[in-house]
Amino acid sequence: MTARNLFLLPGDGIGPEAMAEVRKIIAWMNEAKGANFVTDEGLVGGCAYDAHGAAISEGDMAKAMAADAVLFGAVGGPKWDAVPYEVRPEAGLLRLRKDLELFANLRPAICYPALASASSLKPELVEGLDILIIRELTGGVYFGEPKTITDLGNGQKRAIDTQVYDTYEIERIASVAFEMARTRKNTVCSMEKRNVMKSGVLWNQVVTQTHKDKYSDVKLEHMLADAGGMQLVRAPKQFDVIVTDNLFGDMLSDVAAMLTGSLGMLPSASLGAPDAKTGKRKALYEPVHGSAPDIAGKGIANPIAMIASFAMCLRYSFNMVTEADNLEKAIANVLDKGIRTGDIMAEGATRVGTVEMGDAILAEF
Amino acid sequence: MTARNLFLLPGDGIGPEAMAEVRKIIAWMNEAKGANFVTDEGLVGGCAYDAHGAAISEGDMAKAMAADAVLFGAVGGPKWDAVPYEVRPEAGLLRLRKDLELFANLRPAICYPALASASSLKPELVEGLDILIIRELTGGVYFGEPKTITDLGNGQKRAIDTQVYDTYEIERIASVAFEMARTRKNTVCSMEKRNVMKSGVLWNQVVTQTHKDKYSDVKLEHMLADAGGMQLVRAPKQFDVIVTDNLFGDMLSDVAAMLTGSLGMLPSASLGAPDAKTGKRKALYEPVHGSAPDIAGKGIANPIAMIASFAMCLRYSFNMVTEADNLEKAIANVLDKGIRTGDIMAEGATRVGTVEMGDAILAEF
Ligand SMILES: CC(C)[C@H](C(=O)O)[C@@H](O)C(=O)O
Ligand SMILES: CC(C)[C@H](C(=O)O)[C@@H](O)C(=O)O
Repeated sequence: MTARNLFLLPGDGIGPEAMAEVRKIIAWMNEAKGANFVTDEGLVGGCAYDAHGAAISEGDMAKAMAADAVLFGAVGGPKWDAVPYEVRPEAGLLRLRKDLELFANLRPAICYPALASASSLKPELVEGLDILIIRELTGGVYFGEPKTITDLGNGQKRAIDTQVYDTYEIERIASVAFEMARTRKNTVCSMEKRNVMKSGVLWNQVVTQTHKDKYSDVKLEHMLADAGGMQLVRAPKQFDVIVTDNLFGDMLSDVAAMLTGSLGMLPSASLGAPDAKTGKRKALYEPVHGSAPDIAGKGIANPIAMIASFAMCLRYSFNMVTEADNLEKAIANVLDKGIRTGDIMAEGATRVGTVEMGDAILAEF
Repeated sequence: MTARNLFLLPGDGIGPEAMAEVRKIIAWMNEAKGANFVTDEGLVGGCAYDAHGAAISEGDMAKAMAADAVLFGAVGGPKWDAVPYEVRPEAGLLRLRKDLELFANLRPAICYPALASASSLKPELVEGLDILIIRELTGGVYFGEPKTITDLGNGQKRAIDTQVYDTYEIERIASVAFEMARTRKNTVCSMEKRNVMKSGVLWNQVVTQTHKDKYSDVKLEHMLADAGGMQLVRAPKQFDVIVTDNLFGDMLSDVAAMLTGSLGMLPSASLGAPDAKTGKRKALYEPVHGSAPDIAGKGIANPIAMIASFAMCLRYSFNMVTEADNLEKAIANVLDKGIRTGDIMAEGATRVGTVEMGDAILAEF
């Protein structure tokens, strides 16, 4: 059986602790199931800066490009708050997204039933919540040029960022959203600000056209992004798949994640286009939570988001659907048993650390 | 006593109905209190397009420029969904903001005690909520050039929007935030995406410098805008004053408004710089809710946001602090008595229409 090549980038903060739990699952799948995962590991973020003076080295970039999938932990922390903009920890993540052309960021916002009461929303509004946010990840204001700060003299500076979208970028992300919707409740809501932004006008047109040309069986709605933020807070269950640009996706997916009460538990997948010859897509899997420097190294971080990201990796990079389902079920079972890390602790539950949580999930898997 | 000149732009949808209730309050203040308000009225949005082919006429722009304050209802509706971008209803509002240089948008997100249970958040998280969002309103991606859609051939188009911020624009909005904080809980949280946007880097630097130079007595925090969206949903009461750019302000203030459960009740003020000679600032007051075309003309719209916007006008344009306080108290009293329009109806409350709500508030004023 051919090897399944994984490149691990644990990064900073709680990234390495969370990744260690995934490594246990990988080892078990190799031993017990002959899964033949081959792993290599590199540095990204602040730790890469400390080692190489860059947020990711050329060598590690090459390994990420060559792997079947990248597992990414988290980057950043106060230690690197003052490093130059070009080598700040986030630059490593942004370069991976850009150079691997991972244009489609899938962010499920699901509410684990056992955690509905942890949401700041009324439980009836979030119980059973299952939204999939599809965020465009390689375009927009994140990468558009010019992106500069210029000294104008007289103590004045001018900062410029540029939002750029081409038709093909919108078309391909819209297609991903429609395809995903077909495997779910068949409904897509596209969000932009066409009343203010030309990119919103084009976004709206291209999504509408793509829908008409190829996906007219899917139900399509349009919403202004500010109204979308409101509706997410008011009645999140009205949504199935949401498709939106890089910056709105950043904001809206964080709001949606927080609604679930399961922030420490939410995974994401960032996918490229299928290769014309092999059909394979480049991919990176990453928890939605950040590096949480305040709790790093204490053994108390919740590894579930990282493990759930690996479940997405099984599903989307290796088509191991049963294994992905089983791993997700294992997570739900452990939660149902009342096993909890500190961030999701509830009355009467059993408080455990990072390692015990990983062990408990592996035992159910 | 010199006249107080108000220019009324009721606009589309429920705008005119809501404005009618403010007109009653103005008339009463003139009669009973000799307030000497002089009003004139114009068209903005879709109705202006229907009349003149523009979202606001030059004549009405001139009147808005000359007035002491503009009262604005709402613009837009499905009728005008297909009009050209340059004359869409929103263009009237954007032109008013830009030409009057209304750079400081004040959006209070308060939770009326009588309405805490209407929030989708758990009541204990929003009871007593009192946030003031200060949104920069004349810069950023709303107005930056280039703002274009270009045909690239091959069926491809490219849309560009440009986010531009100069030092002075950030400095003046930061100063407003610090000044406002001093009259409240003395805490400002500045939100941007400095990890991705150069405008975020400059924003962060200038806010920090302004704080150091002139407002070091105020407590200043910085938060990434996506994390800010999360924190608004998780624990909104942690905030006092939030200062942020035009686009983030649009998103974050809508999320904050929805949290309060009082969306139909929230006012806003958009202020210019004080005139060097007279000290007067240009100003526009506007409810946060939109034109709600679905309920327009039925006499059921909630006029409270429009009336509360007039209270802000009394406070900020005419320094009528007692009158502003009294009008706000009148609103709270009416709510306490269980008088409600349909949007905020609750069990055991008395349902009323737009006119009766206006009458009830006037009776308490
Ligand atoms: C770390 C940062 C650059 C990143 C982003 O803004 O995309 C993060 O917020 C995310 O959502 O993945
Ligand atoms: C109507 C629209 C142009 C406007 C904006 O985006 O600023 C609105 O959403 C607002 O928040 O006042």
